[in-house]
Amino acid sequence: MKRLCVLVLAVATAACVIASMLFTAGRADDEAAPIFGVKMPPGYRDWRLISVAHEEGNLNDLRAILGNDVAIGASREGKLPFPDGTIIARLAWSYDPLEESEKAFGRPQSFVAGPPKNGVQFMVKDSRKYASTGGWGFAQFNDGKPADEAVHNTCFSCHEIVKARDFVFNRYAP
Amino acid sequence: MKRLCVLVLAVATAACVIASMLFTAGRADDEAAPIFGVKMPPGYRDWRLISVAHEEGNLNDLRAILGNDVAIGASREGKLPFPDGTIIARLAWSYDPLEESEKAFGRPQSFVAGPPKNGVQFMVKDSRKYASTGGWGFAQFNDGKPADEAVHNTCFSCHEIVKARDFVFNRYAP
Repeated sequence: MKRLCVLVLAVATAACVIASMLFTAGRADDEAAPIFGVKMPPGYRDWRLISVAHEEGNLNDLRAILGNDVAIGASREGKLPFPDGTIIARLAWSYDPLEESEKAFGRPQSFVAGPPKNGVQFMVKDSRKYASTGGWGFAQFNDGKPADEAVHNTCFSCHEIVKARDFVFNRYAP
Repeated sequence: MKRLCVLVLAVATAACVIASMLFTAGRADDEAAPIFGVKMPPGYRDWRLISVAHEEGNLNDLRAILGNDVAIGASREGKLPFPDGTIIARLAWSYDPLEESEKAFGRPQSFVAGPPKNGVQFMVKDSRKYASTGGWGFAQFNDGKPADEAVHNTCFSCHEIVKARDFVFNRYAP
């Protein structure tokens, strides 16, 4: 009986490992976004903070702008344009009133990040590869899956309004 | 003449180094905050992000909550209470409308972080040392200098409204 248990457990474990490997191999964050071919950079959630923001209107979110080491270095120096190798990540979450603080103040006071919202976006600097879009490749992933081409057609036209800041909306928040 | 220049430069350099050492030794971020004796943890601006928030009313800021490695680990696991060694940092900046986006949308749309505002705050977990305040030591620094005792008397009473979450307002934003 004991031997059978060990065998069953071993087979079950092997099956789980294989299933997990298959799942990992095919998972969405391996897919490149359309137009620019940007993939989700591994470990971006561990990157350091550039700044924070809030969008009103339809977006209605709280967001954080993180950067890889190149992005952080350039942001802190405040030098433009950003060097090749810069990757900036924009995370966003639902804009939720904090219940406890609303109760204590008797009115909305604190707004905190709820569940993820409006996807995760990346800007990748490669001045040769992306020469026609200010040197930036853009990508948006919704639930780890690249957004469609139509979404990616809107990136550069919107970022063009801050061309004077190398197409980046946020400055480094000290 | 060349020798004199070298000598003058050497003396001037030495004087600068000494002045800089004296300045560093006495600078504000070596000072401990009152009541809890918490000092500004070195390198906190490089810590990883726990979450983001916006305060309305008099505070009127955008904020980021960063954590040291212990804080990030515990926040991601979502286990309470936070272990000893946890340090959580709350940074805040002016809540500024983004001019370019307001122009493009014809109404306020994006709010970004302006200059630092409302100081930098820290929560340090030491369940024995700070047993009378839920295991947390609190500190606020304004422009690198500890805020006064009156300010530090308000920390715990406010954080008590989220006692059920180990006195921490923000959850980890994935």
